[in-house]
Amino acid sequence: MNDRLEKQLAFSLEIDKEKNVFRQTHLSGHGRRENDAEHAWHMAIMAWLLREYANEDVDITKVMLMCLIHDIVEIDAGDTYAYDAENLKTQKAREDAAKERIFSLLPDDQRGELTALFDEFEAYETAEAKFAHAMDNLQPLLLNDSNDGGDWKEHGVTAETICGRHRKTRLGSETLYQVTDRIIRENVRKGNLREK
Amino acid sequence: MNDRLEKQLAFSLEIDKEKNVFRQTHLSGHGRRENDAEHAWHMAIMAWLLREYANEDVDITKVMLMCLIHDIVEIDAGDTYAYDAENLKTQKAREDAAKERIFSLLPDDQRGELTALFDEFEAYETAEAKFAHAMDNLQPLLLNDSNDGGDWKEHGVTAETICGRHRKTRLGSETLYQVTDRIIRENVRKGNLREK
Repeated sequence: MNDRLEKQLAFSLEIDKEKNVFRQTHLSGHGRRENDAEHAWHMAIMAWLLREYANEDVDITKVMLMCLIHDIVEIDAGDTYAYDAENLKTQKAREDAAKERIFSLLPDDQRGELTALFDEFEAYETAEAKFAHAMDNLQPLLLNDSNDGGDWKEHGVTAETICGRHRKTRLGSETLYQVTDRIIRENVRKGNLREK
Repeated sequence: MNDRLEKQLAFSLEIDKEKNVFRQTHLSGHGRRENDAEHAWHMAIMAWLLREYANEDVDITKVMLMCLIHDIVEIDAGDTYAYDAENLKTQKAREDAAKERIFSLLPDDQRGELTALFDEFEAYETAEAKFAHAMDNLQPLLLNDSNDGGDWKEHGVTAETICGRHRKTRLGSETLYQVTDRIIRENVRKGNLREK
């Protein structure tokens, strides 16, 4: 087996570890906590299904791949909860080191491609990155809404806090932002989410 | 919210259940059993990484989407172990009913698209279906190889049995079939897999 294929298979085996990185979100039906690989799978399918609602035309292959790989760095860096101010401070440094180690398992060209794609997602500037982020926000919102806001209750977050994050869904999709906004309001009305 | 978007979101929530369908394969590092969503995520990334080894040119977006959705029917039908002769007999009927129920949650056009894609995968005829199946075979092989063949030992399968399935990897990728063949031989040599 040549060196190139050996590297590709080593990377393929390494990313299996992403299935052990658990998030704060719980599966629907008041299930267990979700892991990063499942979350990425869910986002990629949703991106394909909902692509008609992207504000701008998107290269859907790129969006799907972005969704699939955006959390690979968490194999080393761990999951940082979106509303955990303390851990958010060190997140970038931890994720940069992980990106260097994990993507370096690949042949140079693919290392370059996946690193660039990860950076593009993080930079939140292109149409693809904005739409992928919309999925990153909407997917756990759907689960949490289906569970009567259990994750919000557990962490004591308020509508005010989560609105800051979800407002950015608007950058990727005005239509899906309207859905988000409606879901958040309904959860406030039902008492699942404190306003402030 | 319009009816179309409502259906798309209902389907998005429904497929969350795929994360509760567990397979016979164990995660690397002698981990827990893998679920269908994680398996599909892993296959889709591997398809992108290894696309250069497909025997024929493939539409990689189609392959990735095929990988992502190919097990959705198991939400109702359950996972059927590749070497479980009894359950394999009823697999098609169970999966057909599931396909009808689950994809019908979508708007008609998307229901048609995903049903056609699922059927194309099952039919094993197009270049995309053959390559997606190569991933469906190679991904658990990598995990099982990393675990000293634990899944084969548990089920008492032999090299002879699994070779039948893996020979079809050759239809999608001659190169990856060579890898498969080498991995199986090594596991026989190490005593992880009985020959007959």
